[in-house]
Amino acid sequence: MARPRTFDENTVLEAARDAFWKSGYAATSMDDLTAATGLGKGSLYAAFGGKRELFDRVFRDYCAAATAHTRAKLDGPDAGAYKRLRAYVLKLAADSAGPPAPRGCLLAKTGAELAGTDAAITDQTRSTYDALGAAIASCIAAAQRDGDIAASANPRDLSAMLLATLRGIEALGKGGVTVATLRRAARTALEALPRN
Amino acid sequence: MARPRTFDENTVLEAARDAFWKSGYAATSMDDLTAATGLGKGSLYAAFGGKRELFDRVFRDYCAAATAHTRAKLDGPDAGAYKRLRAYVLKLAADSAGPPAPRGCLLAKTGAELAGTDAAITDQTRSTYDALGAAIASCIAAAQRDGDIAASANPRDLSAMLLATLRGIEALGKGGVTVATLRRAARTALEALPRN
Repeated sequence: MARPRTFDENTVLEAARDAFWKSGYAATSMDDLTAATGLGKGSLYAAFGGKRELFDRVFRDYCAAATAHTRAKLDGPDAGAYKRLRAYVLKLAADSAGPPAPRGCLLAKTGAELAGTDAAITDQTRSTYDALGAAIASCIAAAQRDGDIAASANPRDLSAMLLATLRGIEALGKGGVTVATLRRAARTALEALPRN
Repeated sequence: MARPRTFDENTVLEAARDAFWKSGYAATSMDDLTAATGLGKGSLYAAFGGKRELFDRVFRDYCAAATAHTRAKLDGPDAGAYKRLRAYVLKLAADSAGPPAPRGCLLAKTGAELAGTDAAITDQTRSTYDALGAAIASCIAAAQRDGDIAASANPRDLSAMLLATLRGIEALGKGGVTVATLRRAARTALEALPRN
């Protein structure tokens, strides 16, 4: 009788995530997932359910991590809020360009592949974008209290624009647009924030 | 002996485009393409080459049409240039939201799936984004000559920001973000253009 296999769940989930990230949901087969994770199909089914359940788990974890990452960069005291926001925007622009070819964001990739046609995925992408927008709005409000952004501006207006610009910078970078143009877009969006 | 099949090339290319648009490149099989176009595999191979050649043709045509569409909306006399730009940005925001689920842009979908890992596709997406950015910059320069946008601003800076914001609005809409937020992002980006 075969011994029950033991495996580290996080290692398996990361390997599955990278397989989906590389090829997208539809193009990743259970065979690809067994090759990536080193687990047999039976073990994968037993531990995570089928391909869809495994993807849902990986994607939910990814969205939670992306939101936590953004909050960690933006949250903090009012003092320095504008500086944190500026650093976050410029770093995203620098990281979005190739070569080497940027892997881009799994949220963007999944959104382009599945959101709009799959209600559960669309719920997940929408709530993640809403959370990212709220983190940006909160940092803008802190920068307003700190005196770096004009108090008369509406943080939700500015955060909606910045969130769109950031998602677009990521998409353009994935599409091969040069880092010089991505930085130009980022700097101009930052300059659009009304200063005191 | 079977009679040679006759078909309308544009109709076949549109059907193939819609199949790729729905499912993405990797998830669309030759069987899907024969079902969508009504042509047998032999006819498809003879007329267009394999799946990749057919996709390249469809995608090249799509990028050319997207660029021509944008130019048609933005090009024109200096008088009214700002009005044309504003209408273009607000319409894109309105069109990017569901429900019904927006199909989104094949350029964005293909970029997310293939650009960055496929050099020929990346060249195509980059040159298309460059052409869209140039059309926007040209409209901004016209609005500057017409006195609606401050002459001191750099059209390339503003067009890089607007192009990113527009691509991001499209991505957020595909990801289920509400039309109210998309319009907010669009209006705020327009307000960020320095007026005289």
